[in-house]
Amino acid sequence: MSEDYTKRTDVNELGEFGLIEHLTKDHKTINASTIKGVGDDAAVLESGNSLTVISTDSLVEGIHFDLMYTPLKHLGYKSVVVSLSDICAMNAIPQQVMVSIAISNRFSVEAMDELYAGIYAACKRYKVDLIGGDMTSSPRGLFINTTAIGQVSKEKITYRSTAKVGDLLCVTGDLGGAYLGLQILEREKQIYLENPGVQPDMEGQNYIIGRQLKPEARKDMIDLFDQHQLVPTSMIDISDGLASEVFHICKQSGVGAWVEESGVPIKQEVELQSIKFKIDPITCALSGGEDYELLFTVDPKDIEKVKYMPDIYIMGEIVEAKDGVKLHTKGGNIHDIKAQGWKHF
Amino acid sequence: MSEDYTKRTDVNELGEFGLIEHLTKDHKTINASTIKGVGDDAAVLESGNSLTVISTDSLVEGIHFDLMYTPLKHLGYKSVVVSLSDICAMNAIPQQVMVSIAISNRFSVEAMDELYAGIYAACKRYKVDLIGGDMTSSPRGLFINTTAIGQVSKEKITYRSTAKVGDLLCVTGDLGGAYLGLQILEREKQIYLENPGVQPDMEGQNYIIGRQLKPEARKDMIDLFDQHQLVPTSMIDISDGLASEVFHICKQSGVGAWVEESGVPIKQEVELQSIKFKIDPITCALSGGEDYELLFTVDPKDIEKVKYMPDIYIMGEIVEAKDGVKLHTKGGNIHDIKAQGWKHF
Repeated sequence: MSEDYTKRTDVNELGEFGLIEHLTKDHKTINASTIKGVGDDAAVLESGNSLTVISTDSLVEGIHFDLMYTPLKHLGYKSVVVSLSDICAMNAIPQQVMVSIAISNRFSVEAMDELYAGIYAACKRYKVDLIGGDMTSSPRGLFINTTAIGQVSKEKITYRSTAKVGDLLCVTGDLGGAYLGLQILEREKQIYLENPGVQPDMEGQNYIIGRQLKPEARKDMIDLFDQHQLVPTSMIDISDGLASEVFHICKQSGVGAWVEESGVPIKQEVELQSIKFKIDPITCALSGGEDYELLFTVDPKDIEKVKYMPDIYIMGEIVEAKDGVKLHTKGGNIHDIKAQGWKHF
Repeated sequence: MSEDYTKRTDVNELGEFGLIEHLTKDHKTINASTIKGVGDDAAVLESGNSLTVISTDSLVEGIHFDLMYTPLKHLGYKSVVVSLSDICAMNAIPQQVMVSIAISNRFSVEAMDELYAGIYAACKRYKVDLIGGDMTSSPRGLFINTTAIGQVSKEKITYRSTAKVGDLLCVTGDLGGAYLGLQILEREKQIYLENPGVQPDMEGQNYIIGRQLKPEARKDMIDLFDQHQLVPTSMIDISDGLASEVFHICKQSGVGAWVEESGVPIKQEVELQSIKFKIDPITCALSGGEDYELLFTVDPKDIEKVKYMPDIYIMGEIVEAKDGVKLHTKGGNIHDIKAQGWKHF
């Protein structure tokens, strides 16, 4: 009688990452074609002389998006982009996507046309083929599941688990914008709900709102790495915030990290907007999420390559695991960086 | 001003297949690795000397299952099986699955353990690896999306669109059971709701209920074809009912079909239960769905091979498109077979 059927553990006790680990830790893969299963941005399959990488993501109405301020075309675009971002995070080139939709009957054919216009715009932009999916109904709400497939040579595949002590910690683009964009949209929604006559105040905030509504996958960076014959030692995309992603690389690589706050790229308009919301800008970057930039490590011998690449920032270093995962603030303090799970439950 | 933004077309006007066709008809694939996109049981990708096939399916609470009579372990098992069935329908061997789950906070960790016990049971039974997925929350209800991946040699890949006039129309297993199983479960649910004191009456109906709650993918048939060096000329799995699937093969192959009612395999217990429900048994087989058997065509030169294979039934012939898709009843009448879409909207 080892089972206790009366036990009820709330999923919040484990959180997203804890729950996934709990559910998958005992599963051993058996097929020779399975190179890498659960635990990275994408799974990796043997495919002749190269590798196929494959990843899946869900967007759920009321959790990941609010149709009150999310145009369906943008939503379709984003649903493809977030899954392509996972493929890029393996240093692979995305080639195909499958999109499954569950819709309630409040959605019209015209609404689906808008959604698919966004899906196809992303396919065109990233040169990927829509190769299938599933279309079904839901009792309420819109669910979108996107599976992306890419190719990469065996020499270039980049995992989360292969950062080494002494590697440089780098990031693309700028961080924190997507989170602030969401805060602006949520604020304007509340104002509208309380007083539908008030016009939304989004003047001069196109960049920040665009980061939330129309993110891009950094396929351009994968192309750039290829042109410069740079293979990162590890990589992950930033979907849950910098802190969480640094933590994933460190945990899976068995290392620690030292992050300089001054090295974390934050745009001036993000900084200003952050202060307006009375949030420390570094908090937006660390915990905000949805920027879909790439976090990666490079061998120090490659420093000359990354130093001159556009839109790449060196912001820290990989250290011994015993030294932990630390943020060195501009004020000279040292803080532990904690893993931020996703907190939707 | 060609756009009419005030227009609202109900998705029911198009139905599942019409909506998919409407949304995907103009999309051209561009990558050389994309062999086959939308329009078959699975997409087909180039993969060295062989082909990778990939398919995705969603199961939505309140649409595809009712947790009042569906044990979570069975549901996990079924969610994997239905996607493996699509891989088998391409004459491929399934090797990997990805499972994405969206759950509301009414589900406990223990409930997820049950669901995953079923997922892993299916993985073990079919020798496939669970290689990833996504875990997120939903405002209400359980959503499961499964993506299955398989391999097949270029000589053996079997599409829906390649049936030829004169081919034999064959089916595996027996049909109609899964639909009747659902009717029994729904009936017992209603009785229970009206009078919780009444014990459910499912005596002697294990087979039929099992067809609904624990379907199997016919991977054994793919192995059998391989042993006998039989490559069907076309194939599809029976998820929406025989009528719908015959119609898909005919439409995509540009042919017609002649189906003998006497050749459609229906188990005696299915027949008896059907009569109890006052439904013609052939109607269950034609329109019931969820049997996950395989419908396929073979070249007449292969008749000796299929004649002696266990659990395969020859039930008709492929004819010219102009001769339509017809059912020759036991009573000697001839009926048109109509495509049955899925009618969840």
